[in-house]
Amino acid sequence: MLYLTRKLLPLVCLSLSASPALAQDKNLIQYVRPMTGTDRMGHTYPGATVPFGMVQLSPETDTQSYELNGKYNKDVYKYCAGYQYGDNTIVGFTHTHFSGTGHSDLGDFLIMPTTGKLQLNPGTADKPESGYRTRFSHNTEVAEPNYYKVKMEDHNILAELTTTTRVGFHQYTFPKSDSAHIILDLMYGIYNYPDKNVWTYLQIVNDTLITGYRQTTGWARTRTLYFAMVLSKPFTSYGYQNNSKKEVYGGFWRKFKQEENFPEIAGRQIRAYFNFSTKEDERIKIKFAISPVSTANALDNLHKEAPGWIFNEVKREGQRLWEKELEKIEIKAPQETMENFYTAMYHTFINPTVYMDADGSFRGLDQQDYKAKGWTNYTTFSLWDTYRALHPFFNIIQPKRNGDMIQSMEAHYDESVHKMLPVWSNSANENWCMIGYHGVSVIADAIVKGNADMDGKRALDACVTTARHRSYDGLGYYMDMGYVPEDKNGSSVSKTLEYAYDDWCIAQMAKKLDRNDIYLEFIARAQNYKHVYDSTTGYMRPRMSDGSFKKEFDVLNTDEAGFIEGNAWNYSLYVPHAPAEMIKMMGGNRRFVPHLDSLFNFELPDKYFAATEDITRDGIIGNYVHGNEPSHHVAYLYNWTDQPWKTQERVRMILKRMYHPTPSGLSGNDDCGQMSAWYILSAMGFYPVAPGSVKYSLGSPAIDEASLHLENSKTFTIKTKNQSAKNVYVQKVTINGKEVTDHFLNHDDIMNGGELVFYMGSSPKKK
Amino acid sequence: MLYLTRKLLPLVCLSLSASPALAQDKNLIQYVRPMTGTDRMGHTYPGATVPFGMVQLSPETDTQSYELNGKYNKDVYKYCAGYQYGDNTIVGFTHTHFSGTGHSDLGDFLIMPTTGKLQLNPGTADKPESGYRTRFSHNTEVAEPNYYKVKMEDHNILAELTTTTRVGFHQYTFPKSDSAHIILDLMYGIYNYPDKNVWTYLQIVNDTLITGYRQTTGWARTRTLYFAMVLSKPFTSYGYQNNSKKEVYGGFWRKFKQEENFPEIAGRQIRAYFNFSTKEDERIKIKFAISPVSTANALDNLHKEAPGWIFNEVKREGQRLWEKELEKIEIKAPQETMENFYTAMYHTFINPTVYMDADGSFRGLDQQDYKAKGWTNYTTFSLWDTYRALHPFFNIIQPKRNGDMIQSMEAHYDESVHKMLPVWSNSANENWCMIGYHGVSVIADAIVKGNADMDGKRALDACVTTARHRSYDGLGYYMDMGYVPEDKNGSSVSKTLEYAYDDWCIAQMAKKLDRNDIYLEFIARAQNYKHVYDSTTGYMRPRMSDGSFKKEFDVLNTDEAGFIEGNAWNYSLYVPHAPAEMIKMMGGNRRFVPHLDSLFNFELPDKYFAATEDITRDGIIGNYVHGNEPSHHVAYLYNWTDQPWKTQERVRMILKRMYHPTPSGLSGNDDCGQMSAWYILSAMGFYPVAPGSVKYSLGSPAIDEASLHLENSKTFTIKTKNQSAKNVYVQKVTINGKEVTDHFLNHDDIMNGGELVFYMGSSPKKK
Repeated sequence: MLYLTRKLLPLVCLSLSASPALAQDKNLIQYVRPMTGTDRMGHTYPGATVPFGMVQLSPETDTQSYELNGKYNKDVYKYCAGYQYGDNTIVGFTHTHFSGTGHSDLGDFLIMPTTGKLQLNPGTADKPESGYRTRFSHNTEVAEPNYYKVKMEDHNILAELTTTTRVGFHQYTFPKSDSAHIILDLMYGIYNYPDKNVWTYLQIVNDTLITGYRQTTGWARTRTLYFAMVLSKPFTSYGYQNNSKKEVYGGFWRKFKQEENFPEIAGRQIRAYFNFSTKEDERIKIKFAISPVSTANALDNLHKEAPGWIFNEVKREGQRLWEKELEKIEIKAPQETMENFYTAMYHTFINPTVYMDADGSFRGLDQQDYKAKGWTNYTTFSLWDTYRALHPFFNIIQPKRNGDMIQSMEAHYDESVHKMLPVWSNSANENWCMIGYHGVSVIADAIVKGNADMDGKRALDACVTTARHRSYDGLGYYMDMGYVPEDKNGSSVSKTLEYAYDDWCIAQMAKKLDRNDIYLEFIARAQNYKHVYDSTTGYMRPRMSDGSFKKEFDVLNTDEAGFIEGNAWNYSLYVPHAPAEMIKMMGGNRRFVPHLDSLFNFELPDKYFAATEDITRDGIIGNYVHGNEPSHHVAYLYNWTDQPWKTQERVRMILKRMYHPTPSGLSGNDDCGQMSAWYILSAMGFYPVAPGSVKYSLGSPAIDEASLHLENSKTFTIKTKNQSAKNVYVQKVTINGKEVTDHFLNHDDIMNGGELVFYMGSSPKKK
Repeated sequence: MLYLTRKLLPLVCLSLSASPALAQDKNLIQYVRPMTGTDRMGHTYPGATVPFGMVQLSPETDTQSYELNGKYNKDVYKYCAGYQYGDNTIVGFTHTHFSGTGHSDLGDFLIMPTTGKLQLNPGTADKPESGYRTRFSHNTEVAEPNYYKVKMEDHNILAELTTTTRVGFHQYTFPKSDSAHIILDLMYGIYNYPDKNVWTYLQIVNDTLITGYRQTTGWARTRTLYFAMVLSKPFTSYGYQNNSKKEVYGGFWRKFKQEENFPEIAGRQIRAYFNFSTKEDERIKIKFAISPVSTANALDNLHKEAPGWIFNEVKREGQRLWEKELEKIEIKAPQETMENFYTAMYHTFINPTVYMDADGSFRGLDQQDYKAKGWTNYTTFSLWDTYRALHPFFNIIQPKRNGDMIQSMEAHYDESVHKMLPVWSNSANENWCMIGYHGVSVIADAIVKGNADMDGKRALDACVTTARHRSYDGLGYYMDMGYVPEDKNGSSVSKTLEYAYDDWCIAQMAKKLDRNDIYLEFIARAQNYKHVYDSTTGYMRPRMSDGSFKKEFDVLNTDEAGFIEGNAWNYSLYVPHAPAEMIKMMGGNRRFVPHLDSLFNFELPDKYFAATEDITRDGIIGNYVHGNEPSHHVAYLYNWTDQPWKTQERVRMILKRMYHPTPSGLSGNDDCGQMSAWYILSAMGFYPVAPGSVKYSLGSPAIDEASLHLENSKTFTIKTKNQSAKNVYVQKVTINGKEVTDHFLNHDDIMNGGELVFYMGSSPKKK
């Protein structure tokens, strides 16, 4: 059992005794809608997981059947999480999923219970009866934290899923059948294509225990996942299909009698099945443990985490863990805000994911196995997204976990032959997705906020070495010339701006650690945003290696125009560490405020929308693209002008329009929790525009009240007066009774406990 | 440094001090001809290895270039050891080779030094300049134990190779060049075909250290080998070619500057190269360590075994180890016999190979990693061949090693999901090659001879469980019906006969261990050879499941006629555990002796020869096929008749005709040392017709004298009187002065030390 031991204030009366009933007075779990974001762009999954769990056991609805010789789903982008709410067939349940990404991988170890004639191919959505998949209806579907249920109509089986950190627990209620099957499809994966599977291996150890592994090359280039699967009742017989091309030495193992089972198989395209007879309403359960290191460790994980067979106990224990996490922040708010808020908290406590066995073992970036002693190893670092609000949120509400995440990043650095902190890492692989080296921001934010119990020198060395890696993505040019030249390296403006911010983070960290030499080096680099500012147009603009700005320049163009996931209009605002200087550079309030206004008011022509992948029409307000992270700080920039009330107005509008607790309620990819973290902090009324700073920018809270129960045993309370949907404007703010005049909240104000009060009204408070 | 510590008799004055010079009085190494068997059928390799070494560093002469889209050498059978004496180009040097097999695998980590324009494909033998391969001449070639040298003409480089147990040590002497290269080709392998490579991985850790691994599927279905490679001087630059089809997420790592090196690559078809400038006669050395478990272990192996850079020291140390092994038997004989004998000893001390890191780690059959404590783990168990004479030879001269080999086989059994001892195993894989379960013979022979310090109960359990595996290769039928029925399972007669012999071995072991119940069960099964004897024809004959003998019956037919690597004529003689009963069954001396005579005198028509793969015309005397193991005991069968002198005559003829210390001097595959073990024992005058028995059948020695220095510190001496090429007939034999009248030698006679004397003459000693 995984207990978090911590002292709770009397306000929270959670029973930690043997009866794991949910606390009578709260039950915050009831507000979580895991279906949020499963329709279209959100790319979340509805299945079961525990906070930061290594297993994410969820249904797959991919409409096509991947078969060996082509014919796979060209709509691969939709299925990053394996599920789309608009689909009406389920192909099976797999044990690993990303939450809210824009790229695909995982989907390991598909389990599918069926009845009737055994069909060993998935079938297609338009003809489900041609394979093992089943029709289903959302009417029979239930999705709660750590619990998923659905009726599988074509097989007349009720499927229920729950998990522990490392074990997926399936419960299937069968009809009476003398041809019931459990299919284990090792061919299946999320984003499957020829050569995705490198190798798979399967051992039928006895009639209830199966072990093996799956090795793939995809977004993670060299990834292996091991499993141990235990059945609640012995199968009567089993078999498998090896769909690989004829193996050269394949003849030898066929010396065994064909009609008898052969307990060991390996190859690239394996499907196995296990046969049963079932009585009416008989339940067959499966405990499916995974490990990044070995099948022996998977079995050990299983024994330690899920020794029993009572499904509801495991479900309740996971839900107790969720309740405990959610209760870290108790809010009062209208119903929809409650649902948005706790659904967002649920989504922020999914990634990064635990990547470590019960005994501390994990696979490192160099493909060697290591043991973590005294810390937990994590993976799934979507850092380009999550440095912005997710990790800063963790510095408030999950500081110990955040410290372990940083430890995991430093282990990655130690194992890295490039000597770089992670950029975008998962499952012992760096996939280099997106730009920047924002690991330094996460580390700097923790050090500057004093939240992490870490070796500052080691951390700083890792950040500095990373930031001096000349051959990485234009960094050599940036170091030599002060900007990335577009003719040498694309998306050059975005890179220059993000490197400048990252360098500022290093400078803050160096200052805190009394390293003045490093401070001076990197605070100088932090000014480099100025080198890509074109005063003639008033925008950041791609610059060439000869010093001139790029001639062709359309400020709305997102396609190979010098920017990534954005255009000159919205990306030019990316100087989060120096908004005052940026505004001054752009002509001061007089020119900047109308410029910022027009961002939100702009009518974006269709042609510009079409080129951008990760957003929906809903995700755009004018030219403000909330679905794309570079914009996430933008609404708060009014705080550095003479019209701060516009921040309050924009933030409340975004909170209201961009988030709904419905399947299509996320306007863009949740991006491993970043979109959700934006909601949580903004709904509470503050946002970390520049992580690496101790300051938060004040906005306009959507909640009525909030209590943050911190790990240091203190409570930070947020209250509002005169709050309503109309009263978006802040009239006054006090911290512990003292008025705040500069639109900022300090980190210490939060961590020392105390009270922040917003006085709301329907008219802007102008000077 | 790997010392064998043992007490030596004063006769052997080997210096164990710091100057590892070869003993002045012996220098047996000078008689070893590693080139023996490298032309045509022998399938041995000329390269460097230490006794039972894990590394076999040897040149590849495969004439075709394997490229990704087909076009590979259809003559794959010739290249089981990667080298054919008749070729005149070398494509590179790889680190792992089988010695004398009939199937292919290994050939890992091809290293090729070149000068001039970098060409990253191997080229072909008819156009070597089209790739990196080189012409060479046997005139510049030197092959000694643990040393190989050749001049690479197209690149003007002198190549020298030596090894320790786990490290290949290369020394390349370059001309002056500003474009010298070392190529590391991870695509290359022995018997390469599409999909052979599962995955390869490479890390350029710094400018002298490279690590990685190669994962293949072939004869070993799931095999991975790790390496660590250290250069004696830093490269100036490096690069690689990834010949895989375009990777789906391949774009991300290309964010690094193209013209700079990227230190980490993974994929299926990788070739890497390292660039240097060299002065005239400059030497670049490479230490290349391997490991079955991890790159960290490979590096540890390297540090422990080869910390220095002096090539000659490593060469001399390995040769010292060889000299020590060879001096276990000192003979006096004519020059050619000396060369045959010590070349054969060299070939018998190559397999099985060490499969374990310096720290005891190895990969088990279940793909998990284990640690051997107090024993050495071995692999490459070609048991269908080696149970006959190789392991019995080890029971005399390598009893401790043989005990570790049995321990390795038992570990395999423990890890086996089938619960079977190995059949044909290599590199943590069972490939099930050939027939029978002859592991039980190896174990029984050791137990019965009292040579192995092992847990008899554990060993017997493993043997019995293996022998009761019903679904293995007709064994269920054999157990139920007393024979394997040909209509249910091919090669049924060979299987029946070999199972009967294996079962007799289990009975001997059970008797020694006082397990009467098991003894009775298996001594009954040992009679099953009678069930396939057809008295109407006088041959063993395939029998059907309805009890009748197969109608079509051509006693010379080897092709799907009920036999494997043989025909009814020679295989009918395979009752090694009961020759007296067999002869009686076949009509007694009166009918059997002429029958046996005709085997040796028969004119075999071409059509029968052509169907058999592993033999040459030279390997056949009449219908006696020495290249095929089932015949190996046959020449000794006269000892059970009234014409024992014919054994002496046949054995001397085989020794003379079938073995020459020349490249084409082996008439069939050496079969991991079995052919060589036959030579050694027969040349000394005795042979274990039925391993599992304590008796050896006497023949006719070809040597003048031999001293066997045993591990128990005793010496067994063999002497001859009146020996000559003509004097093949034995007039009298004494053991410790007492005359031997029954043509047998007991194992204890050998192990107690003492003296065996053969009195030779030119006429047969008839009764």
